[in-house]
Amino acid sequence: MAAPQALDLLTQALRRLPGVGAKSAARMAFHLLQHDREGARQLAQALAGAAEKVRHCARCHTFTEAEVCAVCQDPQRDATRLCVVETPADQAALERTGAFRGLYFVLMGHLSPLDGVGPADIGVKALLERAQDGVVQEVILATNFTAEGEATAHVIGEALRRAGVAVTRLARGVPVGSELEFVDLGTIAHALADRR
Amino acid sequence: MAAPQALDLLTQALRRLPGVGAKSAARMAFHLLQHDREGARQLAQALAGAAEKVRHCARCHTFTEAEVCAVCQDPQRDATRLCVVETPADQAALERTGAFRGLYFVLMGHLSPLDGVGPADIGVKALLERAQDGVVQEVILATNFTAEGEATAHVIGEALRRAGVAVTRLARGVPVGSELEFVDLGTIAHALADRR
Repeated sequence: MAAPQALDLLTQALRRLPGVGAKSAARMAFHLLQHDREGARQLAQALAGAAEKVRHCARCHTFTEAEVCAVCQDPQRDATRLCVVETPADQAALERTGAFRGLYFVLMGHLSPLDGVGPADIGVKALLERAQDGVVQEVILATNFTAEGEATAHVIGEALRRAGVAVTRLARGVPVGSELEFVDLGTIAHALADRR
Repeated sequence: MAAPQALDLLTQALRRLPGVGAKSAARMAFHLLQHDREGARQLAQALAGAAEKVRHCARCHTFTEAEVCAVCQDPQRDATRLCVVETPADQAALERTGAFRGLYFVLMGHLSPLDGVGPADIGVKALLERAQDGVVQEVILATNFTAEGEATAHVIGEALRRAGVAVTRLARGVPVGSELEFVDLGTIAHALADRR
């Protein structure tokens, strides 16, 4: 079957989205063209607009359209505490708790030597300079508790400690609402060691 | 957190894709902006291009950029057999078998009264006219073997038979390579009734 070229190009382009395979891409293309052309046009505009306008905050590296993002510009925030997260989504999760009023540094990834992601790619040098600007008194490492996130926290933590910066890590322990029976052994062991 | 507006628009637009929720949309937006801006631009162009160029074949209703699609224009195809499918993907599956050399009629959906999809939306009138054009000798119903696909085949089949058109349906039976033990009872019952 000779499929139309524009449709092929669309299906191929959709496959560049993470988690979208050949069948999903074909289903998405069919849905947009058959039922939601307006959605296709809106998505096209949103993609072009974001690709053109969105850049990284000069202070915390998160996505922003300004030179410095709104959080970094907020004078109400406590500039002495700097929380290091992997992604804007992680930052958003912390913000939703309302428990942190300091500032952030967003790595926009984690160390992953196998994928060629080294310290330079996640802005470790900028973070070290920022942590020693005379204002920051504590750096809170809030990278994920995955193998990559732990390794990233370890590397950054060592570098910061060598520079004489006070470093803390989010507490590991039993999640709120859990029954011990169903919590994995590593988590229980950490919760026991860090008991208070 | 005040997220940048262009990023919000992108995340919202991505949620219009079928099967994409809030977290998937955020992950897709992060991936495109952080790791694949070229992919974002390509997808934007592909979406705009397809939304503008792709239309329906005047004969079989599938997606095409021409007035009539390549399959319908192919003089090598057997115009006496007309195979009715729900989507271009179903048509592609049949084409891959190499077992059918006739022409197609693509419903671009199936009857779904609860979603407001009636016979007019899937082109039943056009199909009836096509089936009585004096060339078509057999209409093969190849809608899916789901509740909606069966209902669609039933409605179309009845209308065609009333018009005196010869109608067949794809055979139901045990899939190639299956072990009976693991085949559902309805399929075995059909395979038994249609034994040859």
